[in-house]
Amino acid sequence: MATQNQTETPPRYTDVPIGIDATGKRTEFDSMGTVDVPAERYWGAQTQRSLQHFSIGHDHMPIEVYRAYGVVKKAAALVNEEAGRLPGWKAKVIVQAADETIDGKLDDEFPLYVWQTGSGTQSNMNINEVLSNRGIQLLGGTLGSQVPIGPNDDVNMGQSSNDSFPTAMHIAAITELDERLLPRLRELHAEIAAKAKKWMDVVKIGRTHLEDAVPLTVGQEWSGYAAQIEECIREIEHSREGLLRLALGGTAVGTGLNAPAGFSEKVAAKIAELTGKKFVTAPNKFEAQGSLDAMVRAHAALRGVAVSLMKIANDMRWLASGPRTGFAELVLPSNEPGSSIMPGKVNPTQCEAIVMISIQVIGDDAAVAFAGSQGNFELNAMRPIIINNFLHSARILGDGVEKFLTYSVKGTELNEKKIASYVGESLMLVTALSPVIGYQKSAHIAEAALANDQTLREAALASGEVTAEQFDKIVNPAALTGSGVGGA
Amino acid sequence: MATQNQTETPPRYTDVPIGIDATGKRTEFDSMGTVDVPAERYWGAQTQRSLQHFSIGHDHMPIEVYRAYGVVKKAAALVNEEAGRLPGWKAKVIVQAADETIDGKLDDEFPLYVWQTGSGTQSNMNINEVLSNRGIQLLGGTLGSQVPIGPNDDVNMGQSSNDSFPTAMHIAAITELDERLLPRLRELHAEIAAKAKKWMDVVKIGRTHLEDAVPLTVGQEWSGYAAQIEECIREIEHSREGLLRLALGGTAVGTGLNAPAGFSEKVAAKIAELTGKKFVTAPNKFEAQGSLDAMVRAHAALRGVAVSLMKIANDMRWLASGPRTGFAELVLPSNEPGSSIMPGKVNPTQCEAIVMISIQVIGDDAAVAFAGSQGNFELNAMRPIIINNFLHSARILGDGVEKFLTYSVKGTELNEKKIASYVGESLMLVTALSPVIGYQKSAHIAEAALANDQTLREAALASGEVTAEQFDKIVNPAALTGSGVGGA
Amino acid sequence: MATQNQTETPPRYTDVPIGIDATGKRTEFDSMGTVDVPAERYWGAQTQRSLQHFSIGHDHMPIEVYRAYGVVKKAAALVNEEAGRLPGWKAKVIVQAADETIDGKLDDEFPLYVWQTGSGTQSNMNINEVLSNRGIQLLGGTLGSQVPIGPNDDVNMGQSSNDSFPTAMHIAAITELDERLLPRLRELHAEIAAKAKKWMDVVKIGRTHLEDAVPLTVGQEWSGYAAQIEECIREIEHSREGLLRLALGGTAVGTGLNAPAGFSEKVAAKIAELTGKKFVTAPNKFEAQGSLDAMVRAHAALRGVAVSLMKIANDMRWLASGPRTGFAELVLPSNEPGSSIMPGKVNPTQCEAIVMISIQVIGDDAAVAFAGSQGNFELNAMRPIIINNFLHSARILGDGVEKFLTYSVKGTELNEKKIASYVGESLMLVTALSPVIGYQKSAHIAEAALANDQTLREAALASGEVTAEQFDKIVNPAALTGSGVGGA
Amino acid sequence: MATQNQTETPPRYTDVPIGIDATGKRTEFDSMGTVDVPAERYWGAQTQRSLQHFSIGHDHMPIEVYRAYGVVKKAAALVNEEAGRLPGWKAKVIVQAADETIDGKLDDEFPLYVWQTGSGTQSNMNINEVLSNRGIQLLGGTLGSQVPIGPNDDVNMGQSSNDSFPTAMHIAAITELDERLLPRLRELHAEIAAKAKKWMDVVKIGRTHLEDAVPLTVGQEWSGYAAQIEECIREIEHSREGLLRLALGGTAVGTGLNAPAGFSEKVAAKIAELTGKKFVTAPNKFEAQGSLDAMVRAHAALRGVAVSLMKIANDMRWLASGPRTGFAELVLPSNEPGSSIMPGKVNPTQCEAIVMISIQVIGDDAAVAFAGSQGNFELNAMRPIIINNFLHSARILGDGVEKFLTYSVKGTELNEKKIASYVGESLMLVTALSPVIGYQKSAHIAEAALANDQTLREAALASGEVTAEQFDKIVNPAALTGSGVGGA
Repeated sequence: MATQNQTETPPRYTDVPIGIDATGKRTEFDSMGTVDVPAERYWGAQTQRSLQHFSIGHDHMPIEVYRAYGVVKKAAALVNEEAGRLPGWKAKVIVQAADETIDGKLDDEFPLYVWQTGSGTQSNMNINEVLSNRGIQLLGGTLGSQVPIGPNDDVNMGQSSNDSFPTAMHIAAITELDERLLPRLRELHAEIAAKAKKWMDVVKIGRTHLEDAVPLTVGQEWSGYAAQIEECIREIEHSREGLLRLALGGTAVGTGLNAPAGFSEKVAAKIAELTGKKFVTAPNKFEAQGSLDAMVRAHAALRGVAVSLMKIANDMRWLASGPRTGFAELVLPSNEPGSSIMPGKVNPTQCEAIVMISIQVIGDDAAVAFAGSQGNFELNAMRPIIINNFLHSARILGDGVEKFLTYSVKGTELNEKKIASYVGESLMLVTALSPVIGYQKSAHIAEAALANDQTLREAALASGEVTAEQFDKIVNPAALTGSGVGGA
Repeated sequence: MATQNQTETPPRYTDVPIGIDATGKRTEFDSMGTVDVPAERYWGAQTQRSLQHFSIGHDHMPIEVYRAYGVVKKAAALVNEEAGRLPGWKAKVIVQAADETIDGKLDDEFPLYVWQTGSGTQSNMNINEVLSNRGIQLLGGTLGSQVPIGPNDDVNMGQSSNDSFPTAMHIAAITELDERLLPRLRELHAEIAAKAKKWMDVVKIGRTHLEDAVPLTVGQEWSGYAAQIEECIREIEHSREGLLRLALGGTAVGTGLNAPAGFSEKVAAKIAELTGKKFVTAPNKFEAQGSLDAMVRAHAALRGVAVSLMKIANDMRWLASGPRTGFAELVLPSNEPGSSIMPGKVNPTQCEAIVMISIQVIGDDAAVAFAGSQGNFELNAMRPIIINNFLHSARILGDGVEKFLTYSVKGTELNEKKIASYVGESLMLVTALSPVIGYQKSAHIAEAALANDQTLREAALASGEVTAEQFDKIVNPAALTGSGVGGA
Repeated sequence: MATQNQTETPPRYTDVPIGIDATGKRTEFDSMGTVDVPAERYWGAQTQRSLQHFSIGHDHMPIEVYRAYGVVKKAAALVNEEAGRLPGWKAKVIVQAADETIDGKLDDEFPLYVWQTGSGTQSNMNINEVLSNRGIQLLGGTLGSQVPIGPNDDVNMGQSSNDSFPTAMHIAAITELDERLLPRLRELHAEIAAKAKKWMDVVKIGRTHLEDAVPLTVGQEWSGYAAQIEECIREIEHSREGLLRLALGGTAVGTGLNAPAGFSEKVAAKIAELTGKKFVTAPNKFEAQGSLDAMVRAHAALRGVAVSLMKIANDMRWLASGPRTGFAELVLPSNEPGSSIMPGKVNPTQCEAIVMISIQVIGDDAAVAFAGSQGNFELNAMRPIIINNFLHSARILGDGVEKFLTYSVKGTELNEKKIASYVGESLMLVTALSPVIGYQKSAHIAEAALANDQTLREAALASGEVTAEQFDKIVNPAALTGSGVGGA
Repeated sequence: MATQNQTETPPRYTDVPIGIDATGKRTEFDSMGTVDVPAERYWGAQTQRSLQHFSIGHDHMPIEVYRAYGVVKKAAALVNEEAGRLPGWKAKVIVQAADETIDGKLDDEFPLYVWQTGSGTQSNMNINEVLSNRGIQLLGGTLGSQVPIGPNDDVNMGQSSNDSFPTAMHIAAITELDERLLPRLRELHAEIAAKAKKWMDVVKIGRTHLEDAVPLTVGQEWSGYAAQIEECIREIEHSREGLLRLALGGTAVGTGLNAPAGFSEKVAAKIAELTGKKFVTAPNKFEAQGSLDAMVRAHAALRGVAVSLMKIANDMRWLASGPRTGFAELVLPSNEPGSSIMPGKVNPTQCEAIVMISIQVIGDDAAVAFAGSQGNFELNAMRPIIINNFLHSARILGDGVEKFLTYSVKGTELNEKKIASYVGESLMLVTALSPVIGYQKSAHIAEAALANDQTLREAALASGEVTAEQFDKIVNPAALTGSGVGGA
């Protein structure tokens, strides 16, 4: 009896381009028997079985998962090679096929659906099979023979779906955050912060409970939005830390069975090297495979973005409402006709899209948390639903923010005439009198002004509590906005 | 001044096949100006604007919405023609293009995203533009000229997005329910009911709180599943009633402005005629356009299915757990190898898919209810998110049920040996003694059996409270399962 | 061997008033041993154990559950008596104690928490123990002796928590709906419908996407609210049907073990008789005990109310925003000063409370659906959380609607001056020109008006497309509101 | 004209004990007029108005909010005094009354409901009124006169509800976390970690997808639970950072109007001093008042606890299922009889309570996130619902964890006999053969064993692929569990 991989002699490598020149069917096999697959595809028996059993709706396992899986397979092959478990000539073709996956050249080979086994095993086998056959092709072997590159024995060496799939999830999630959502949020933050600075001295009326309140500046209001986004970014960065910890090396149930000692740390280091991101091995593999808590927390950070964005987008569309019968303080860019029946109508569509995206992310988050709670024993078998929702939420937030920034925030302008006219109308500037004449007398002045359709100044003077000179000195809107954003 | 459509003379109709033989760009216009669109596409300026402003993620407005919209446009054209507002030669080409949409022949012409204007106006304009240009083509006109078939004036005649989009939503939703989810649920119900009947006399141990309880039959247990599904179907049918009421005829804000008197009822009748479904006009158009309550209710019915299915799928996978160290009462079909690392492993993957689908539907439902609450004034501008989640939920439930039925429920078999062995082991059959010797004495017998590792019979006889003859007469598992499904 | 209850001779009944004249501790027992309970309380060992093990937070099992349980215990005692299983003298005291529970006279005897066993067994034992001891007291026995009225053998005769607790849930739920929520919703509907009628001819500007649109009447707008509430009521009534089906008679696992044949139907009929509500026995006891689907559906109906109310309350507070710098179309009653710092401020606080209540109900609903999905085998052990959330949601909706109606809706008045001024300002009345001069020309008129700060009439005449006479004839706001609520 | 507070001479202070010796009604006033309040209560007109308008359900504003508000009022009074704005004799009595509030001596004076104004103004006025009247009493004045201590002018000096209420929310939230939830989670973590250590060498069968898998040790399994709890604690600590930032000093809209320069920083420092917690002033007051994002994030951390606890509690109850027909690996403490009908039944009730609590927290979280998204302009008026849900979730988690730890985790024992018997039965130990004989051959051995009802060893030897000696060397369960918790 000899262990696998000891006695094989290397076949000749040829750099065959991607593609299988065949039509019809090819017979593949797995432990349950043979299965016919489309001859032009690299995938094997288990992928085909999954296609048969799980063609449900239109939700495909996101391609980002497979590209991240390419990194996993590549790193594992390299570490296995370094450990002397996997011959170099095998590692070479697995790495090449993995790189092709990472580069998106094999995207069409990953057709599976989200609604499959909860461990992601079918997607793991999909990439195992594709890399196996692509490797066989590069080595001049027979597709479907599993020789000399076996999907289980070689491509999956030292791995289980149970540790490799969540590893791919984390890589895919961080990649999406780093490449799309975080930079776009930073751009949005920069633009809003710039607008806050630009408009820092434009006095406007404040509103609380939707009702007239005391003044602030437009810049102060927008500084609040900027601060919200800043915290959102910080929270994503925090939750990202949890995603840097990888399950790989736990294999089937967390014990690392069939992986060599030290594999966990070496393969995490390799992944870090390949991606340029600070991945480390998870300190506890039973937590890393039995739960998906880090993903749940990371999605909560996305939900935080949704909660903040919804407030900002709602403020913008309400403040832009009108143009004649609404608040009309802001003028949003006119991007398209707003109505099929009402000519000349323009609507705050980017804001609406952001609101809907935010609601969707909050709904996705409910699914993620629910799924996160449903682990049993050594496995949380709710992985496909969680990674699909995570990538979905991150993606629509990232793209949504880009469109919102480009087509709405950037072009937003002030209707300064309207803004100024409101400042004089609110009766709540009476608040400035309160420290001088007391709350109750101040209240009666405001009430009188409303009842008698007076300005605040008229009512204040009529009350006899203050002189015109006093009023004009105390009730100075610009002065009432204080200084800066930190309150008193 | 003459009203539109009075003075035009009919151009010649030619039945040009679908397709535009052009490359490069074509200039289209709308009220905001001109826009270049791909020359081979039927869509116009507003579709192109939307593509530019709203290419967010991968969520496209479901094609089912456009096919349903085809029905709306066809019905409106026919009613407008009957009313003498739309010349017959215009109606003819609009109807033809609408039919082509309904038949899926124009699917590629509807590229827009879910995350767009909340009214669905851009999707309405998309179909208006496509039908306009297709109509123009059939009449030998110049694409993009809006003559002689204008997207707003002719295709959208008597309509607004505000009433036509929710109408399309209802048609699409009911179609999905009727063609997929309901028949599949009925099939699942039939299969489960058949199994309940088949296994009605197989006595098994009951479990409450996961703990051993008194016996019932496998058929009784499955009759409960059947009853759950039956109620799910009934609830969908109930909520479907609300979807039969159509907003069309309310136009922009519910008043019916620019639609002729009687339009609401006539167009609903026409849609009923075209679809063979009992559509009627909504009695209150302000409710029908300002809210999406009927959709929220219909999604709650889908959620009900998710809640029920999750229980059933969970029961099945727990009862099938093992094969050696779990409950092992059921044997589910072995569809595929279950593990990339553990050879010979088989998992309850169909059940897992159903559980994940159920959780997703519950998450979608959270988004739908939230969105349903966010209407303002004359419009709930959360339509795209709601119809997208509705069709998503209905679809994954429908497909998921089909796979679950085909690949798991149908082939499920009993491990009768195991089932029988458990019946004798549970101490809770002591319950049958309770009416005879009292609860407390019975409890002490069960406790003694557990402490002393005895069978219930041994402990009962040892207690001196009953004779062997009495015990055997009273503690008869089959007799303890009562009769039928209605309890005592 | 004799069955229980055959040989006992009746002790003497004395109508002792409620109350135990004792201090310190009394020893009670259950099958696990003895427990000291407060001497002045009727409860026994298991209640005391639960208090020790489950004093979690402030959530007590709602008293409504125990009052409903009183009905269950009374009905069971009467049916058991009629069946000759329970001696009349026992039934008499059980019934008396049950009536005292129903009447709220024993409220202090039910101290348990929501977070207990998921079957509600501890609450069932709580009432069993209280009725046992109260019965013993009426018969001159020794408290805690379980003689001659045993909590398990007599009060719980023919019942399990598994069937009796969901029965009490249904009774409590329907009672809450019938006594509070439904009548209050009907009152709200009546008031809103009355206001819709009263204001049917007050023309106002419509708003879609928060933006100016074409006119409708205030009454039309409110008719939409009325229609929403009407549908909410109808949906509750529908879901109430599912709650009329009672699990009682299924006993431990649905088979009816230890309950006599016919018990299910008789006891349901008795409960119907006692409550005057059309309760029936559930056709399938395995569904009735293994799931809580009917409760999930009933809560979805409550959520529907939340979704609708939120829209209405939001509309009201936005339309009342101001008084100087908001929409200011509505004037809500001034119930209290709105700010601790801004004198004279008044806020739409009733609307805010309704919005918060709606959100809470939607949150409660998420918990209910989740819990509803978590049943296993013969029991869904998530009952306390579900009934607690149901009664919570129904109660805060019922009370909230009462306050909202009394302190906000009833006193709402129109700012007709403001409403009228807006009608003239919206440029969207140009829509009426569209069928005459076409959509595109109409759009350009509206755009010009906005750009040049003109009225629509000024811009229309300047365009040369219509004469003043034509304009005034076509653009007649009142005429544009159509007739009634059914659209065109 | 003189500013308030300049000319008053100090009345004499007497240390009157708490309590008002009066019955019937007392007339109080606010800016809207007079209101009768119960004479024995300290509260004033606005509290009474709120009681009238908002007695909705049973949800009272948590007393923890008022106690935290006591800190706010005390700190503000001290800073106002130091700034020379508030005379020392006024500060003295306000501080005394605030201390009495903090100490819980005035708990009965805070009767308001959660469902009130969304800013919490009514609760702020409640404490303002109570401190005003208590101060007046200490100074020998007339209750209800607002002299010499006014609720608005003195107790609320330099504050608005808009900044003080969220400040109280943060203090109350952190206090709950620090005093209850965090220490209890740390205790739970310590116990679970201790058990993990104790059971580190007990080999058991692993399960994935509920199906038999390869072995691990009980200690490894529990180490995963410990790691989950550890991360939960870390996440709460992280989210707590956001709660340390206080809005106080922003007053009405964030500008700090009517608060003196430097107030924000001084009052935060004072609160830090009074509480011994590192509170600081929020860097941006518009974010701190216009959003509740930090609360939403903090609740997400609570939800994280729920998600983790649910997994752990579910594992425990499944592993304890039986005793005869379930997994039966764990023996949980028997705390109480489990069934009213099935004698001797014991259920995993603590686990069920934790599961229900977890679901409730997830439901509460949905409400919190929704509410967090609904801010408008300068105020998120969803504060009462958010603080109520936060304190509710934290409390039931804290108490639930205490009970779960005390009555279930601590007493959990192993059924080592059962655990050992399972290890030998699982066929998945074949995995160890896979690196030697390959995956496919290994799979066929496992399949044969199942089909032929053999042990793995029997089937392996029968296959001819390994010798008995090899098998026994390779398939050594203890060796297969690896070493430690970090995987390979």
